[in-house]
Amino acid sequence: MYTDFSLRILIYLGSKNRSELSTIQEISGKYGISKNHLMKVSHELGKAGYIETVRGRRGGIRLALAPEQINIGAVVRRMEDDFYLVECFQPSGGRCPISPVCRLKGALGRALQAYLQVLDEYTLQDLLVNTEDLRVLLQLNENISPVRTADAPLPGYERHSPPAGHETAEAPPE
Amino acid sequence: MYTDFSLRILIYLGSKNRSELSTIQEISGKYGISKNHLMKVSHELGKAGYIETVRGRRGGIRLALAPEQINIGAVVRRMEDDFYLVECFQPSGGRCPISPVCRLKGALGRALQAYLQVLDEYTLQDLLVNTEDLRVLLQLNENISPVRTADAPLPGYERHSPPAGHETAEAPPE
Repeated sequence: MYTDFSLRILIYLGSKNRSELSTIQEISGKYGISKNHLMKVSHELGKAGYIETVRGRRGGIRLALAPEQINIGAVVRRMEDDFYLVECFQPSGGRCPISPVCRLKGALGRALQAYLQVLDEYTLQDLLVNTEDLRVLLQLNENISPVRTADAPLPGYERHSPPAGHETAEAPPE
Repeated sequence: MYTDFSLRILIYLGSKNRSELSTIQEISGKYGISKNHLMKVSHELGKAGYIETVRGRRGGIRLALAPEQINIGAVVRRMEDDFYLVECFQPSGGRCPISPVCRLKGALGRALQAYLQVLDEYTLQDLLVNTEDLRVLLQLNENISPVRTADAPLPGYERHSPPAGHETAEAPPE
């Protein structure tokens, strides 16, 4: 779940202009997922250096790195806390009695490496090649209108019309 | 958990003589895992044709195939019901709004294939190359004594001394 939500936050932020801020409430509304979970995940993404938080009443989060600098394998390694198909992969080592001699560990370890190596081939930029499609489904282009009928009104944010530049609907530069 | 327990049951049964029967209670005691979970998992393993059940008071389970005929990738594909690092991998498809255009699915799908392809290289026999080490840790050689002090006494089974041939402590033939 952490990994899923992490990747969704990154895709969401990457679909906006690089400097544009998003709120957890807004992302929560768009994906229909719990604000509490998103808050925990965005805290972790912040600690990992992938996103940055601008505090204050008109604050929010945005990518701290260019999308091509965010490696998907690295994000998954960092955010996923349950690669443990079997007990002996737990950080504690588990308590399976055959663990010291079991050949399964080696097989599953090789398989996990193969999995992550595929993800290492991707950056966030590769997931944003079709930003315009993403923007449509995330209803990001609808922000263009100064009058929001707001599927998820953001208290404290939306009393004002959106900041200038909001309507330039392109992927981050570089 | 299903996959973990499946593989452990198969390794346990494969560490015994091919014809020898084991009970869920015995396996539960050896691994220290829930009898209820093991019963569900062994039911699935039976449905999949990997193990067979001999009914009756002295009944139990054993491998239905030679260890080299049991492919680990196939077992994991069959038993694992949660490859869903992200919601859109659920059989229902989930309800993530960007699912129709999201490039992440392709990346994670390729990664999962790479994972399973590694496991396809192994059969149960490859995990049993050190059967004697497994038998020691699973305390299978201790059955040799007709007087069991029994870490997990099996009501209904152990009133009688172990069947003849119990003491031949080798890996399945073929």
